[in-house]
Amino acid sequence: AGDAAAGKAKAAVCTACHGVNGKAMIPSYPHLAGQQAQYLELALKAYKNGERTGGQAAIMSGMAKPLSDEDIANLAAYFSSL
Amino acid sequence: AGDAAAGKAKAAVCTACHGVNGKAMIPSYPHLAGQQAQYLELALKAYKNGERTGGQAAIMSGMAKPLSDEDIANLAAYFSSL
Repeated sequence: AGDAAAGKAKAAVCTACHGVNGKAMIPSYPHLAGQQAQYLELALKAYKNGERTGGQAAIMSGMAKPLSDEDIANLAAYFSSL
Repeated sequence: AGDAAAGKAKAAVCTACHGVNGKAMIPSYPHLAGQQAQYLELALKAYKNGERTGGQAAIMSGMAKPLSDEDIANLAAYFSSL
């Protein structure tokens, strides 16, 4: 499993859209707080691998592209812990 | 906005994976309870339109394919209300 503390440090850029507490202000962006960690990892990897396209996916693919698997595990651990 | 009561009726098949209260038992499946309605609509439409591929997306695309826009709005209203 990921390291939530390391995930929190990495999550600064995510909070702009997903909210500082993982509750998105913008209705078309998902809440991440309390989401399943394993699902969050799968979703981030799908964005990173280009398996999610269209609309908002372009933004998220850009965000996910530079993330390592370790970053992804840590971010998933962090948001699922909220 | 969708009709949550109509969404609840439509959601019977969803509960097998996403849980009767929108909290998924299987770690790789997302919780839907309390998720943003507009995001849920966008996600369902992305599955329906084939904009999400790979891994689990195949299952969800099959689920989303037969849904009308009204079904999607109702399901989103229902799960976001939980």
